[in-house]
Amino acid sequence: MVGGGQGAFIGAVHRIAARLDGKWELVAGALSSDRARGAQSAADLGIAPDRSYADYAQMAAAEAQRPDGIDAVAIVTPNHLHAKVATAFLRAGIAVICDKPMTATLAEAEALAALVAQTGVPFILTQTYTGYPMVREARALVQQGAIGQLRHVQVEYLQDWLTTPVEQGGQKQALWRTDPTLSGAGGCIADIGTHAVNLASFVTGLRLDRVLADLTAFGQGRRLDDNASVLLRFDTGAKGMIWASQIVPGTKNELRFRIAGDQGGLSWDQETPELLDFTPTGRATRTLRRGGEETLTPARIPAGHPEGYLEAFATLYADAAAALSQRPSSRGPGCLPDVGDGVLGMRFIAACVESSARGGIWVSLPHPA
Amino acid sequence: MVGGGQGAFIGAVHRIAARLDGKWELVAGALSSDRARGAQSAADLGIAPDRSYADYAQMAAAEAQRPDGIDAVAIVTPNHLHAKVATAFLRAGIAVICDKPMTATLAEAEALAALVAQTGVPFILTQTYTGYPMVREARALVQQGAIGQLRHVQVEYLQDWLTTPVEQGGQKQALWRTDPTLSGAGGCIADIGTHAVNLASFVTGLRLDRVLADLTAFGQGRRLDDNASVLLRFDTGAKGMIWASQIVPGTKNELRFRIAGDQGGLSWDQETPELLDFTPTGRATRTLRRGGEETLTPARIPAGHPEGYLEAFATLYADAAAALSQRPSSRGPGCLPDVGDGVLGMRFIAACVESSARGGIWVSLPHPA
Amino acid sequence: MVGGGQGAFIGAVHRIAARLDGKWELVAGALSSDRARGAQSAADLGIAPDRSYADYAQMAAAEAQRPDGIDAVAIVTPNHLHAKVATAFLRAGIAVICDKPMTATLAEAEALAALVAQTGVPFILTQTYTGYPMVREARALVQQGAIGQLRHVQVEYLQDWLTTPVEQGGQKQALWRTDPTLSGAGGCIADIGTHAVNLASFVTGLRLDRVLADLTAFGQGRRLDDNASVLLRFDTGAKGMIWASQIVPGTKNELRFRIAGDQGGLSWDQETPELLDFTPTGRATRTLRRGGEETLTPARIPAGHPEGYLEAFATLYADAAAALSQRPSSRGPGCLPDVGDGVLGMRFIAACVESSARGGIWVSLPHPA
Amino acid sequence: MVGGGQGAFIGAVHRIAARLDGKWELVAGALSSDRARGAQSAADLGIAPDRSYADYAQMAAAEAQRPDGIDAVAIVTPNHLHAKVATAFLRAGIAVICDKPMTATLAEAEALAALVAQTGVPFILTQTYTGYPMVREARALVQQGAIGQLRHVQVEYLQDWLTTPVEQGGQKQALWRTDPTLSGAGGCIADIGTHAVNLASFVTGLRLDRVLADLTAFGQGRRLDDNASVLLRFDTGAKGMIWASQIVPGTKNELRFRIAGDQGGLSWDQETPELLDFTPTGRATRTLRRGGEETLTPARIPAGHPEGYLEAFATLYADAAAALSQRPSSRGPGCLPDVGDGVLGMRFIAACVESSARGGIWVSLPHPA
Repeated sequence: MVGGGQGAFIGAVHRIAARLDGKWELVAGALSSDRARGAQSAADLGIAPDRSYADYAQMAAAEAQRPDGIDAVAIVTPNHLHAKVATAFLRAGIAVICDKPMTATLAEAEALAALVAQTGVPFILTQTYTGYPMVREARALVQQGAIGQLRHVQVEYLQDWLTTPVEQGGQKQALWRTDPTLSGAGGCIADIGTHAVNLASFVTGLRLDRVLADLTAFGQGRRLDDNASVLLRFDTGAKGMIWASQIVPGTKNELRFRIAGDQGGLSWDQETPELLDFTPTGRATRTLRRGGEETLTPARIPAGHPEGYLEAFATLYADAAAALSQRPSSRGPGCLPDVGDGVLGMRFIAACVESSARGGIWVSLPHPA
Repeated sequence: MVGGGQGAFIGAVHRIAARLDGKWELVAGALSSDRARGAQSAADLGIAPDRSYADYAQMAAAEAQRPDGIDAVAIVTPNHLHAKVATAFLRAGIAVICDKPMTATLAEAEALAALVAQTGVPFILTQTYTGYPMVREARALVQQGAIGQLRHVQVEYLQDWLTTPVEQGGQKQALWRTDPTLSGAGGCIADIGTHAVNLASFVTGLRLDRVLADLTAFGQGRRLDDNASVLLRFDTGAKGMIWASQIVPGTKNELRFRIAGDQGGLSWDQETPELLDFTPTGRATRTLRRGGEETLTPARIPAGHPEGYLEAFATLYADAAAALSQRPSSRGPGCLPDVGDGVLGMRFIAACVESSARGGIWVSLPHPA
Repeated sequence: MVGGGQGAFIGAVHRIAARLDGKWELVAGALSSDRARGAQSAADLGIAPDRSYADYAQMAAAEAQRPDGIDAVAIVTPNHLHAKVATAFLRAGIAVICDKPMTATLAEAEALAALVAQTGVPFILTQTYTGYPMVREARALVQQGAIGQLRHVQVEYLQDWLTTPVEQGGQKQALWRTDPTLSGAGGCIADIGTHAVNLASFVTGLRLDRVLADLTAFGQGRRLDDNASVLLRFDTGAKGMIWASQIVPGTKNELRFRIAGDQGGLSWDQETPELLDFTPTGRATRTLRRGGEETLTPARIPAGHPEGYLEAFATLYADAAAALSQRPSSRGPGCLPDVGDGVLGMRFIAACVESSARGGIWVSLPHPA
Repeated sequence: MVGGGQGAFIGAVHRIAARLDGKWELVAGALSSDRARGAQSAADLGIAPDRSYADYAQMAAAEAQRPDGIDAVAIVTPNHLHAKVATAFLRAGIAVICDKPMTATLAEAEALAALVAQTGVPFILTQTYTGYPMVREARALVQQGAIGQLRHVQVEYLQDWLTTPVEQGGQKQALWRTDPTLSGAGGCIADIGTHAVNLASFVTGLRLDRVLADLTAFGQGRRLDDNASVLLRFDTGAKGMIWASQIVPGTKNELRFRIAGDQGGLSWDQETPELLDFTPTGRATRTLRRGGEETLTPARIPAGHPEGYLEAFATLYADAAAALSQRPSSRGPGCLPDVGDGVLGMRFIAACVESSARGGIWVSLPHPA
């Protein structure tokens, strides 16, 4: 693991997720840029002192040479370091499990994609919400044609924690997320908007063609957007909207989608992740449940025993273990978020920032030839 | 009443609403353009034969001359007739209670506004959702400053009944709503988008400055939009979005808003209209209930005994009776939707249609000098 | 109308309900035992002075003799007067629409039933909740066998308004409901427990065989129960429970049932009355909606435009009008709550009071031969 | 671990829970009575062959003698074996973490309690639901007096998986749970009723004084109850009810409580475990959230990132690790479910079985002197 020392949020989440299904063991780390804190964090986590590294470059080099070297590295640093760290490990031939957004700039993302293509080393992006069973259920229903031709995709991702200018009080999570030098050109649109667009892409299988965005920094003195309104057009002619915001009192982590097709509709809310509402056109709504009747996807524990965020995250780690060992993933081929998803996320951010900066115009996303 | 003969939906709703609080009696009508059906409908409703008129012009003239003439006319015809009918009654000095949208074109709306200004005859627009107690509660909380400076206003209005091309099967409600010659240039944006924008204006008190719209006709062979994505900017710098759609399987009449202010948030859903979620920034969410604790607005029946759509509609009729008799409305001065709200609705439709037709550009709404 | 003068709650509800569908007109009344208040209330309601009576006996006599006498009387007095008033009108040959519980004592109830049988005059009991469309839907599903053989019936009816001893502050509704000389031997069990048992009977069609009750008066100094726990056994071997309480903070009028059959289950909540959850065994839950797909019962207005308590009440008045005019009720033969339902309610109260007084033993309900 | 070989449900849950917070490692086991399956299961879980034991007695003896012997044993066998296994490990001086219900008979439970008292070896009972943060929040609010003097405690625990006689098809979980020789005298009342009564006791702190139960076996040919109606009386005069059932179509694992106090009310539902509704008398309901504002208990991950069943279970394991290492538990002194809770559960089962067998009479629970 690179990053994730004492006081970090997402590093601890990765560790629990990796541990949950018993497929991974944490044996090495460069946990902090502060050497003493890194060593102490490593000791707390049971990492042997000789595998607690001062920096990521040293770790990549040393682990690549050990016969018992790591199977993969988890990158959980602030966003602006992702590209450098990932590059070092990919070049050392070590598989990468990287937190999102993949990089700070689109150029970095594209370079990383090229490196992955060139080296053939696996790269997995932890877009958490793709690990929820009922999100996968929704994807499967769409793929089966259960809701027919897609028409409109609505995604909301709402939080409240930047309602007041907490970064001015020194809140660590807020500090780097509101600082363009650490987070890149997007604030809320990068931090959570990328989850929204990834979720839309993952569930629908549609390719995003164009965006039109209105980004705003409402927080006093804030330099990056904390509220984003985005119109979407997909390549099939389907439309969509994203509202991503971190200034909505009364919300904590309200990520939800509603999809309208000509044969039916789907609706899901991350805060009640075990349920998926499915309405065939002209019929009553069926409430599908993880592990319940009329569902397609396998379950870790029975219906009614709620699984949540950590389990979704753990599913990505379990899938990653399967993928790296060449065993079939429970998710099917080509389904784990990869460097391509990361590039899409960065293109989405760049296009939204450009659209908004130019007063709200449609901006196309380039697509691979 | 003009319109509302056998088989009509909204006419029956107006009659129940007028009756509910015992303030109105239906004594005259031109209920159908089909003379036989009009007479039969009038007889069914207990209207004396001599006050069942063949057409609205005759009715306006005759009622204006009777000493016991009507106090007001309710106009519940298809949209494209509203302006002509309203004009006849206003010229006859008879107060008008008109269904929405106010007219088929912006020009008609502006002419009607001018006529109201010139004649001084009362004109009330039945924007139903302003009659819900918890919508008024939300408005009162905003006016009191309970959520501070407004930042983002999100409104969704979703229905499913145009998912399939029911107008091709001759469904009456669908036929005129999807026909530009009867409904004007807007489909869904006019039929329900106007409710959404009215609700946003009513609750927030903000003046809509600009819109950017993406209107689509997804239904096979449909000529008017059935799905509308709209970005909003208000004069204070607040932002917003509207998603109005009539092709979303699994929804019936899901009108909801969420408002983010710097001191708190509000959230309401028309299908559970008795509840309003109010979150002061940094506190737990309070579920306010009609007639319950910590609420401001008076109640017709106690909390927990659900009131709904008809009661909201009835409140507009009760307020109208109070207004016409010069008694104070329970809603306070200047609060009943009027010809100005109708003009706003028509400007909103025109601006959205223009924005969408021009590929999605910001279009300003003219404001009275 | 007898009772229902200024300040009364349920009288106003009956008037709105009667008016809503346009089938009834209020033309006579003995609205208050206080003569001046009765006259003033009558004037406010547009009742002609000569049909505003000083007492119910005078009204029954006078109306029976008028050629344009009333079609039915609505009795909305406190419970202990129901029997006397109903008797007077039944003897005068005037149909009775009576609020619940039907009487203050079981003896009165049985006498009333005998009188109805003897006179053949129609008697309708306004058990409001049987008027909800989705309650009728549930009944129809049970009758159709959609959930198979019934096993357990759970009903909760929870309110909070007697949490504190408001009767000591003179609150009028609380005063008579907590006074055994005005309400009879049951408090909460009579006031709302009767709704719960009526709902169970109405929906399931089961005959209640035995009850075992634990009644408690938690309110300081209160003489009648404000909290009731009841076990139920039906004649088929089905079991059930009722929790009725008026001291549960956080509830307003939470009446809900859940029914388990061997082929499926049903669940309904009065505070979201438009929805009925129906689960065929081994399938996902279907959310049925009034006026929506897969439902059986006709709708007054379209799905998604919420109907509530007043509409349910109005449906009873509409059905009563149909029944009195010998036209088929929308509800089918023998379906409007009648004097038999009233007797059942009184037997239920008496049996619960006895069971609880004897420390919690099973008490059988007598059934007609 | 004893029990929990391939195909077992609760063993896998214990392993995930133990792993989640990184405080436990699985190093030894007697995973199955089938020797080959036990060995294979051990190999799959990474247990060294010399610590995969043929039976629990051998394991207790061997581990007690190893210098690196286990810190605690997790007992996840069918209920009827709990007592024997626990006895062996307690006698060997090894701490026990035991699944519920603690034993098959009350006599076994009391013997076990005596043994724990005599040996002083720690014994922890995994009453899962006490590990939910908002259940602990509710307990803390009650202890603080936030809802005043308690009046009524309602608990429902509903499942659907025994609606049809699945045990006749050989379903393993159903087979032993419906067999009195393996499960003891209680079916549903033991399997889930004990969770309900434990939850009531844990949250309220009240001592259960008496029960009156009506147990039924609705499933065709079933010998143990699958549906239980129970009236409760607590030592303070508070009342309560439990409905526990495994034959309710449309439910999966619906465990919920509602508590009425004279100063407020609380309501919680295990299927949305992150929320707790708290209503101070005379105020609007506050929706408290794990990790959110106005809450007391610490959070593993931020609000809005749902934690569920596995996290609740993991909290018990984390607390157990703290308790065994003499470090302060996050739950405060004396709070982890212990052998006393197990005895209470068995007394509850025995009293309910007796009450029901005798036709529904009040049966007192003996209490420690």
